[in-house]
Amino acid sequence: MSIKAYAAMAAKETLQRFEYDPGPLGPHEIEVAVEYCGICHSDVHVIDNDWMNGVYPLVPGHEVVGKVTRIGEHVSYVKVGQRVGIGWQCNSCGTCEWCGIGEEPLCSQNQATCVGHHGGFAQSVRANERFAFPLPEGMKSENAAPLLCGGITVYSPLRLYSVQPHHRVGVVGIGGLGHMAVQFANAMGCEVTAFSTSAGKADEARRLGAHEFVVNTDPDALKAQTGKLDFILVTAFAPLDWSAYVAMLRPHGKLCFVGAVLQPVSVSAFDLLLGYKSICGSAIGGRTLITEMLDFAARNDVQAMTEVMPMDRCNEALAKVRNNTARYRMVLKN
Amino acid sequence: MSIKAYAAMAAKETLQRFEYDPGPLGPHEIEVAVEYCGICHSDVHVIDNDWMNGVYPLVPGHEVVGKVTRIGEHVSYVKVGQRVGIGWQCNSCGTCEWCGIGEEPLCSQNQATCVGHHGGFAQSVRANERFAFPLPEGMKSENAAPLLCGGITVYSPLRLYSVQPHHRVGVVGIGGLGHMAVQFANAMGCEVTAFSTSAGKADEARRLGAHEFVVNTDPDALKAQTGKLDFILVTAFAPLDWSAYVAMLRPHGKLCFVGAVLQPVSVSAFDLLLGYKSICGSAIGGRTLITEMLDFAARNDVQAMTEVMPMDRCNEALAKVRNNTARYRMVLKN
Repeated sequence: MSIKAYAAMAAKETLQRFEYDPGPLGPHEIEVAVEYCGICHSDVHVIDNDWMNGVYPLVPGHEVVGKVTRIGEHVSYVKVGQRVGIGWQCNSCGTCEWCGIGEEPLCSQNQATCVGHHGGFAQSVRANERFAFPLPEGMKSENAAPLLCGGITVYSPLRLYSVQPHHRVGVVGIGGLGHMAVQFANAMGCEVTAFSTSAGKADEARRLGAHEFVVNTDPDALKAQTGKLDFILVTAFAPLDWSAYVAMLRPHGKLCFVGAVLQPVSVSAFDLLLGYKSICGSAIGGRTLITEMLDFAARNDVQAMTEVMPMDRCNEALAKVRNNTARYRMVLKN
Repeated sequence: MSIKAYAAMAAKETLQRFEYDPGPLGPHEIEVAVEYCGICHSDVHVIDNDWMNGVYPLVPGHEVVGKVTRIGEHVSYVKVGQRVGIGWQCNSCGTCEWCGIGEEPLCSQNQATCVGHHGGFAQSVRANERFAFPLPEGMKSENAAPLLCGGITVYSPLRLYSVQPHHRVGVVGIGGLGHMAVQFANAMGCEVTAFSTSAGKADEARRLGAHEFVVNTDPDALKAQTGKLDFILVTAFAPLDWSAYVAMLRPHGKLCFVGAVLQPVSVSAFDLLLGYKSICGSAIGGRTLITEMLDFAARNDVQAMTEVMPMDRCNEALAKVRNNTARYRMVLKN
């Protein structure tokens, strides 16, 4: 039985209607009828082959919420009819050292949902049962979808780099990722400073949970933050004056990248060693952390702000992500 | 009573005989008769005013071992006649948030032993009693002196960045700092890979505890280390191909600078985030950690390899540090 989808037939191309035969369902595989699929900036990167790993025809989409329609013969973790989410990763070996400690993204057989596998801009999508996440009751599907990749991307570094409730956290870039990071950090008890190039986002950043707002095109405003922050999460892609951000860190502070800043990051070793500071990075998260994140989001009412469009307007929605006019996550609906 | 010393009268100058009046002994101050004083690369930096903080006449020396000769009226921590060590730091406020958690180097009133204070190239040197460290019995004074700054500089990052016994540790640069780092990491149970530009240091590195030796001018040898190390301690000052070192890190690995590499360190954010890797730094350590390090060194027979010269040949000894022919720490003896 074939699956109807939207695909880029080559790098950077407009998506077209596309139908494919997914083959027999594997013993641990499930099929999910897509109800909502969020659009992540990484969908744009894979469509455009920015990371040189695109396989075409390419069906994007890796922030899926839907109902399980079919399960393989050995599936025991989810049931037909259950509402689940699927994120960036849809399979891993399950036995290596990283799978063994719940860090499946590090598995060398890490299978991405929309790279070398057809994603969620479709009627249905498949995944290994271990990468289908039951969603907490009461969580709205359209707000949950972006948590599956964008949400875990910002939650994971807060946890992995041991951000504590008494910490002061900076979030650089108030967009698709940053608007969720502000909510998570606030819910963790942190004092949150939002950095954005758009002064117009100040009120919204405060509503989302920022205690302070800094227009980061103003060098004096940046200087005023010197030595104030324990953790700075960089969700922006543009190169910034990273030395100024290192200077904003308190001793033992960390400057963490989750956006794939393409230009090299250049810092002074001396600035790091005098304050025991770190530059670090983080990408998505393992199964246990995703489950924890969904639970934490539900308990603290962390939700993506979304703009929903029907699936057949996927190109229009993608354009809004490309030109940075999404407020803040585009979500496609079947 | 004046103190006889050797001082640089201006930046980069040869040391000359110099006598100064230290003034009345403060209530919490002690005076130590210098028996041995190690020479650290940072003595060269302060003499040369590389860090723009030199105060002249400048008496270098901050790796002192000697006997307490005088104590201030409120001193209770050490006794006259006791053997103690003094390192880079000789005072702090004692009450701020950093002093409160044993991280005195971060205190804003951090007083260095030989910057704005006369150091250990002298008959005697003064310090606050809290920064005089009783040395474990059986530890030879001439081998202990370099532990007070060089030793803690490499021990501190292994502890602060949570290096574990099962980790694989790289030490870049087998010199004054690196030869102690190899010993500490080995004593902690780690597998140690030594990186040096000098192939001739291989045997010695192995004797010190390295399990593997890599000539780091050979790109193929560096490539062969890809993904192998959990922690890389950079004790070298020269700029290297830092991307190659980031590539050598396993997931969650850290590349840590303790040498003041002057050129900016440039890395790819993408390389960091895919493996949750960090670039970090560390400098000396607090009182509690210095005490722990001395105890650990004594228990595990970690000792600096030293070349001892009489104090009046301090210029000759400094020249050996400058031209990198010390094997591995020069120590002056009164």
